[in-house]
Amino acid sequence: MASSTTARGVAAIVGVGPKLGRSIARKFAHEGYTVAILARDLGRLSRFADEIAREEKAQVFAIRIDCSDSTSVIEAFEGVLSLGFVEVLVYNAYHQPVSRNPTSFTDVKIDSFEKSLAVSSLGAFLCAQQVLPGMVGRRRGTILFTGQSASLHGIAGFSELCCGKFALRALSQCLSREFQPLGVHVAHIIIDGVIGISRGASASEGGDESETEPMMDPDAIARTYWHLHVQDRSGWTEEIDLRPSNHILL
Amino acid sequence: MASSTTARGVAAIVGVGPKLGRSIARKFAHEGYTVAILARDLGRLSRFADEIAREEKAQVFAIRIDCSDSTSVIEAFEGVLSLGFVEVLVYNAYHQPVSRNPTSFTDVKIDSFEKSLAVSSLGAFLCAQQVLPGMVGRRRGTILFTGQSASLHGIAGFSELCCGKFALRALSQCLSREFQPLGVHVAHIIIDGVIGISRGASASEGGDESETEPMMDPDAIARTYWHLHVQDRSGWTEEIDLRPSNHILL
Amino acid sequence: MASSTTARGVAAIVGVGPKLGRSIARKFAHEGYTVAILARDLGRLSRFADEIAREEKAQVFAIRIDCSDSTSVIEAFEGVLSLGFVEVLVYNAYHQPVSRNPTSFTDVKIDSFEKSLAVSSLGAFLCAQQVLPGMVGRRRGTILFTGQSASLHGIAGFSELCCGKFALRALSQCLSREFQPLGVHVAHIIIDGVIGISRGASASEGGDESETEPMMDPDAIARTYWHLHVQDRSGWTEEIDLRPSNHILL
Amino acid sequence: MASSTTARGVAAIVGVGPKLGRSIARKFAHEGYTVAILARDLGRLSRFADEIAREEKAQVFAIRIDCSDSTSVIEAFEGVLSLGFVEVLVYNAYHQPVSRNPTSFTDVKIDSFEKSLAVSSLGAFLCAQQVLPGMVGRRRGTILFTGQSASLHGIAGFSELCCGKFALRALSQCLSREFQPLGVHVAHIIIDGVIGISRGASASEGGDESETEPMMDPDAIARTYWHLHVQDRSGWTEEIDLRPSNHILL
Repeated sequence: MASSTTARGVAAIVGVGPKLGRSIARKFAHEGYTVAILARDLGRLSRFADEIAREEKAQVFAIRIDCSDSTSVIEAFEGVLSLGFVEVLVYNAYHQPVSRNPTSFTDVKIDSFEKSLAVSSLGAFLCAQQVLPGMVGRRRGTILFTGQSASLHGIAGFSELCCGKFALRALSQCLSREFQPLGVHVAHIIIDGVIGISRGASASEGGDESETEPMMDPDAIARTYWHLHVQDRSGWTEEIDLRPSNHILL
Repeated sequence: MASSTTARGVAAIVGVGPKLGRSIARKFAHEGYTVAILARDLGRLSRFADEIAREEKAQVFAIRIDCSDSTSVIEAFEGVLSLGFVEVLVYNAYHQPVSRNPTSFTDVKIDSFEKSLAVSSLGAFLCAQQVLPGMVGRRRGTILFTGQSASLHGIAGFSELCCGKFALRALSQCLSREFQPLGVHVAHIIIDGVIGISRGASASEGGDESETEPMMDPDAIARTYWHLHVQDRSGWTEEIDLRPSNHILL
Repeated sequence: MASSTTARGVAAIVGVGPKLGRSIARKFAHEGYTVAILARDLGRLSRFADEIAREEKAQVFAIRIDCSDSTSVIEAFEGVLSLGFVEVLVYNAYHQPVSRNPTSFTDVKIDSFEKSLAVSSLGAFLCAQQVLPGMVGRRRGTILFTGQSASLHGIAGFSELCCGKFALRALSQCLSREFQPLGVHVAHIIIDGVIGISRGASASEGGDESETEPMMDPDAIARTYWHLHVQDRSGWTEEIDLRPSNHILL
Repeated sequence: MASSTTARGVAAIVGVGPKLGRSIARKFAHEGYTVAILARDLGRLSRFADEIAREEKAQVFAIRIDCSDSTSVIEAFEGVLSLGFVEVLVYNAYHQPVSRNPTSFTDVKIDSFEKSLAVSSLGAFLCAQQVLPGMVGRRRGTILFTGQSASLHGIAGFSELCCGKFALRALSQCLSREFQPLGVHVAHIIIDGVIGISRGASASEGGDESETEPMMDPDAIARTYWHLHVQDRSGWTEEIDLRPSNHILL
């Protein structure tokens, strides 16, 4: 791979669907990064890669990953690491609950509970292990974990989700405390709302005076991910929350 | 089994070593419960059972369990449930780190990380699933989970421990919110200190005027577990912390 | 005052109305303490003192206090300290909002905001300052502060209440960290529910199998205050929450 | 005042010393805002105003304020409001402790405790009350409160500081929950470290590869304040922390 493609390093985005993952990938591509996007559905992923590469005139690679399977994670990251120095890791994957409705605890299947925990904690653990040695070696890098309100409070009927998301937050805090002194910024972003479809690259940088909207704009969230990445190391964020203005917090 | 033994129901204590687990078992035996104690080391466990049965003139059963293995948990609880109505579950098990010292994150083995999470979350999940239907049926019961400071804050070099303990806390909150309205009290106890050896059954109920001591008395902690169990349902605790008076909190 | 009355020391309960304060006072009287109860309405307070003294055969003193007025607090505690060693302080006072309904922030009056903060923070600060030297001198004593859910999370329309209750929680934490190593137990109790009228001294110690009730029993809460007081110093609680079993936590 | 000066509205920065307040003021001036800076020391404040006005070719007004005095706050804001629509309020004031060392609780003076609380809570309350009606009227505006680690945890020997900072955090949460649905973004920034002197306007946007430094760069922090202001309303932050990379979090 030509060294010119890695001038700004590689940004690896794990867990890329049509909403937040895609917007984050596009933002880092726009800012000049070579981007690796990873998810289970390689067909859809390849379409996103083509689209972003074309729109942002960037190098974007689609790599299949199953975050609940350690072999799959390690193999996928062999591919990612071959692209150059991985300067940014965004871990955005989680095990989609079968239903948006609560599940009675006594009906939760062992396999489902194990899988949810594996995606939220083991997958994140393994991805971080693959990229940290390179980051520590250069005393530079950013790891961003996506959380949600289930990261902070237990919710009746969502034990699978909450156990995994709590564990992910623990991982983020452990890593920030171990690796920030070594030059690697680790942060946890709590997204407390429903993310909609991108309003398009032309969305303004803020100051939107229209009526408030029920859905979170993934491009706007991606700008906050970017801001965390470019924070000066004298003032790094460990945790930030994001929610729509019209969200009723109780 | 004679019904007389189950007048006060069964208290199942999972994760019983020479300190806290043993003291909790003794306290519930002392208060008239039939007690099942569970751990991996059946030899030691049987000695504890004999000792408590003799001292407290109670029925105490030792049952082997490996909390990282779902088959073992389910089999162990078939034994527990055969003793009568399980009114109390105390989950006190965790995967002992190899060392008290921090481990560099990049040196943590996958197996070790998975095992720690399994004991702290999957084991607790399964134990709770076995006893909850009976508790809900009688609209009565108490489930107590043992946490520690690693349940609240990430610690550099202890990601295995923290991820598991955060997940356990999530489980406790999810269960309390789902099952308290159904009559089952679920609480999480954060033990923030080093537990010593029991000072003996004669330890006073408090008001100790001697110099403060560096170790936590497991019998004293067991009295707080008991207090949580006997709380009136109009005022149930979801979380409580315990630390020695001379602990320096930063 | 005869020394016999102070064998167990004095318990001072600040903020005594017909519900929680009265139940706590009765519990400490029942356990043999000389009790001082303090509030603004001396007439009502005197009736409570007579009632508790008669029922519990205890010494109970009613002393007027205005917790928003530093002179009043200092004078009231001159009276309290004259009764003997103040071993227990319970601070239960807060400035009752004009309404249970939220107040639009821009309508909150300066005086009202200042008064709410004064009762929740300055009053607690002053009461603690009066009793701590005696407690430190004997390396013994308990200070219990009553909080509520407004101590943990801001609530739209309740800035007066929340600012005061957050400040009180800060005070509790500062004091526990400074004074626990000196032998004084300081704890914060979060009461997350509506307290009803005492069900009477005959209420059982727990195990109530009747249907859940919407109101918290103040006598049951008082037993948890008592438990905190008698905790062994090797395992002291800094914070505990209490809520009715049927409370829906979101 | 010419309408041209208020095209982007007014940013009012309360509590401006040589470090953070000055950097925030410069950032908003740089971005085209008319800036009002407020503090007690009018002489120093006027020098800052001149300096920023010259460097950023902006309109900068110095206005004296004593945040512990309600009359002073109200008068100062009459001046601020006369400059045009106050679109941004940054509340950065706090009562400097007499010493960086802890003060024994029993030595804290009533006046000092009251003053610290007044600056952190009453001052913030009043400033917010002056600007919110205008913001709500236009369904637009940002209020940013500066917190610190003392906002989250009690610290032995710092009860004055902690009580005030906890109360300020409560205020921020109450306001965000009441006013975000009305179009006003309210956020709380926890600065957990020692802020140094600005490294100058030429400091890079991030990616600093030099050795980590012990002091936080106020210009870098100011960029995070700015980012919060320009967040899209579909993804607003309620709380964010900032600390230097080499900060040891326990």
